Amino acid sequence: MTETSPGWLTPDELGLARARMPILYVEAVPVRVDDSGEVTHVGLLLRIGPDGTVSRTLVSGRVLHHERIRDALLRHLEKDLGPVALPRIPTSLQPFTVAEYFPTHGITPYHDPRQHAVSLAYVVPVTGDCQPRQDALDLVWFTPQEASSPLVQQEMPGGQGALLKQALAHVGCLS
Amino acid sequence: MTETSPGWLTPDELGLARARMPILYVEAVPVRVDDSGEVTHVGLLLRIGPDGTVSRTLVSGRVLHHERIRDALLRHLEKDLGPVALPRIPTSLQPFTVAEYFPTHGITPYHDPRQHAVSLAYVVPVTGDCQPRQDALDLVWFTPQEASSPLVQQEMPGGQGALLKQALAHVGCLS
Amino acid sequence: MTETSPGWLTPDELGLARARMPILYVEAVPVRVDDSGEVTHVGLLLRIGPDGTVSRTLVSGRVLHHERIRDALLRHLEKDLGPVALPRIPTSLQPFTVAEYFPTHGITPYHDPRQHAVSLAYVVPVTGDCQPRQDALDLVWFTPQEASSPLVQQEMPGGQGALLKQALAHVGCLS
Amino acid sequence: MTETSPGWLTPDELGLARARMPILYVEAVPVRVDDSGEVTHVGLLLRIGPDGTVSRTLVSGRVLHHERIRDALLRHLEKDLGPVALPRIPTSLQPFTVAEYFPTHGITPYHDPRQHAVSLAYVVPVTGDCQPRQDALDLVWFTPQEASSPLVQQEMPGGQGALLKQALAHVGCLS
Repeated sequence: MTETSPGWLTPDELGLARARMPILYVEAVPVRVDDSGEVTHVGLLLRIGPDGTVSRTLVSGRVLHHERIRDALLRHLEKDLGPVALPRIPTSLQPFTVAEYFPTHGITPYHDPRQHAVSLAYVVPVTGDCQPRQDALDLVWFTPQEASSPLVQQEMPGGQGALLKQALAHVGCLS
Repeated sequence: MTETSPGWLTPDELGLARARMPILYVEAVPVRVDDSGEVTHVGLLLRIGPDGTVSRTLVSGRVLHHERIRDALLRHLEKDLGPVALPRIPTSLQPFTVAEYFPTHGITPYHDPRQHAVSLAYVVPVTGDCQPRQDALDLVWFTPQEASSPLVQQEMPGGQGALLKQALAHVGCLS
Repeated sequence: MTETSPGWLTPDELGLARARMPILYVEAVPVRVDDSGEVTHVGLLLRIGPDGTVSRTLVSGRVLHHERIRDALLRHLEKDLGPVALPRIPTSLQPFTVAEYFPTHGITPYHDPRQHAVSLAYVVPVTGDCQPRQDALDLVWFTPQEASSPLVQQEMPGGQGALLKQALAHVGCLS
Repeated sequence: MTETSPGWLTPDELGLARARMPILYVEAVPVRVDDSGEVTHVGLLLRIGPDGTVSRTLVSGRVLHHERIRDALLRHLEKDLGPVALPRIPTSLQPFTVAEYFPTHGITPYHDPRQHAVSLAYVVPVTGDCQPRQDALDLVWFTPQEASSPLVQQEMPGGQGALLKQALAHVGCLS
């Protein structure tokens, strides 16, 4: 994928689109599972903002023109976790939820100042080595209990903490 | 909602967007249910094309900028079934499936020559009177068995027949 | 339904079965919704134990021999909420989760000292008047925020508080 | 697991229970998937009845007393597919459907002359070698198209053909 791919927008075009349409995203909650499929750990990307703020995020990104959701999930997982994370993309496209990020606060628990984004959210077991790439410093594994603790939740921006709790509820790990 | 709403695109802008991005849709399968929630009938819109072709379609339409999925579902159900259909929008946004319509054939069972559309699909019980508006001639109620028959299936364009069968499978009415 | 129905067990038989097999239950989270399907309130039954303990519970009960899940849901909703609650049983039998209650602690978040019960859990909008019957004193409506508060959670026995949070997560109301 | 395990019933006890209660089952649709999670093949067990009848079945079995659903799935997959099938048990217990097998015909699409069985159904990718054990002769892999063909469907007893179609619909492979 290069910037000349028809699936990419120029910055101007993306700016225009963001002001006029909901933008389709996929979001993945990377997890480690045991042999019985039970989630033992959740992986969160660690990012440091320009002002030094620590934030922890899920794997997330746009779906491109003419790209399948499955391929978008794979692409963003590889982009964020490296080429040998060996993600197990779900057999069904039924997401555990759909997160609606609005540029204004208070409509839903989700907020994105840049745009109205609609995100299909999946839990994705990864079995290989994860080497964060791009702008992430690290990938840190938390137990489900740690992941839903106030300490971790407050470091997750834009409502991603709520989305993570929804994922934990879906896999039966929210107590 | 009028064409001056910021959520609407001019025809030129919509054309540009359709060539560059996946467009977010919602799709509703209107159903009649009995007291135990079992689906007894499925409603399909009857349309006659400019060339006289008969087609049967689900309720379907775009999600606008800054519009919640729930509100898009309500708006399109009212647009297609009239103001007193009394639809019961689902409590959860988890769709029974996500249908990916591509402008090229064969990538998924779904096809839309105009665009790459990604559609969140829901089963929606309606309890009131349905009076089709806009360009639909009629709303016809079929039993689940009739709805999955080859006769009805072949009148559903773009893979909507497959989507209807997925809906029937989801509610336990595909035998 | 009387005790002579073949679906009923004598107390001895039920005791034997409970020691030998998982017992199938259904569980319903009664909710009030607005026109767009968004949950505004959750209904919890108030019970006072023999020792004066206050507990708040969901609608719950066994599935009988030769009884459909839909009919078991209807029967228990009517038994607990009265005959004019007008519940909207879901079109799909896909539960939002399956809660496994074990007689020993710590295997899952759910615990039932009497038995190993496996419970299919559904969110059920009710639109009519609710008049608790049987051993419940009252049905109290809570906002989603109140329902997930520690105050309410600690009054819900056997892990039903965790199940309620899963339901709220499923309908997008857990923040 | 031997017959002295408390989770097992004597034949008499099982006979009694079957006449009085719904019996809890799990059912697994074994699939092969590609890197993007898309189902490429479905595995069906081949059985020859005492009268020479060919039947094709899914992986299926009872949940025992004090056994988790995850462990019942693992146990039955290993029993039917051998010890190195390497099944990927789902992270979430939310089944794609619940199949209700009644001893009388016509209540649901599912029928079991022995009992009222309620079965939680899951799609389970398997990545290792499958060596059918017990009474199955062979495990045969079909494409989704073959699996939903009348030829295969008519060899699946008790409504398992309908359940297989529901599974294919759930993973987007029913056209």
